[in-house]
Amino acid sequence: MKPLNLQQKFGCFSNHWHPHQIGTVNDMQVLLAKVKGEFVWHSHDTEDELFQVVRGTLLMQFRDRTEVVREGELIIVPRGVEHCPATRGGEEVHLLLFEKQSTAHTGGVQDARTQTDYPKI
Amino acid sequence: MKPLNLQQKFGCFSNHWHPHQIGTVNDMQVLLAKVKGEFVWHSHDTEDELFQVVRGTLLMQFRDRTEVVREGELIIVPRGVEHCPATRGGEEVHLLLFEKQSTAHTGGVQDARTQTDYPKI
Repeated sequence: MKPLNLQQKFGCFSNHWHPHQIGTVNDMQVLLAKVKGEFVWHSHDTEDELFQVVRGTLLMQFRDRTEVVREGELIIVPRGVEHCPATRGGEEVHLLLFEKQSTAHTGGVQDARTQTDYPKI
Repeated sequence: MKPLNLQQKFGCFSNHWHPHQIGTVNDMQVLLAKVKGEFVWHSHDTEDELFQVVRGTLLMQFRDRTEVVREGELIIVPRGVEHCPATRGGEEVHLLLFEKQSTAHTGGVQDARTQTDYPKI
């Protein structure tokens, strides 16, 4: 029941595409992630996922288009929709994610960066 | 699946302590609220609640202390914990709330400001 400062928490890690958990709310979790470059195409069959941009500009790629999500904006990816988050050039983007604690990092896809557990910070 | 701009959404309403829903994620909802002054003491028996400060400084009062939550910070109030959000003096504070769609606005307490449904914007 203490305030969590996002900038302070982002200072606790530097690896990309590697979410860290800062809290839980019911059966959901709040994750912070630093991302750079392109992730992996995947979807979550039964779970929605929220991405809030805290710094920089996220490119949320869908199969039929790309949405540009800027600082101060968020996007909700509904269950079942294939997506691949990315950033422009060498930009590092800071994200806050809300998702179920059961949501698999890369859905049913296996990638070298796939995590099965998120460090708590 | 469109980006939601928080500033644009905050511009859609002006009433205080009157959350507006901007989206749903699984069985949770994302609400925006403008708050000013003091709310009502209440708790939610079985549901946690997240408050993220988008603008200003929130005073989250608990029975034994008050936590100061600043812009760029968030606080998670666990189920069962009595709380009363407030602001300093005449400051209007902008909040993003993340809670279950079933969470009652003022828990089991009835107040003139209690809402049973949140407008969608």
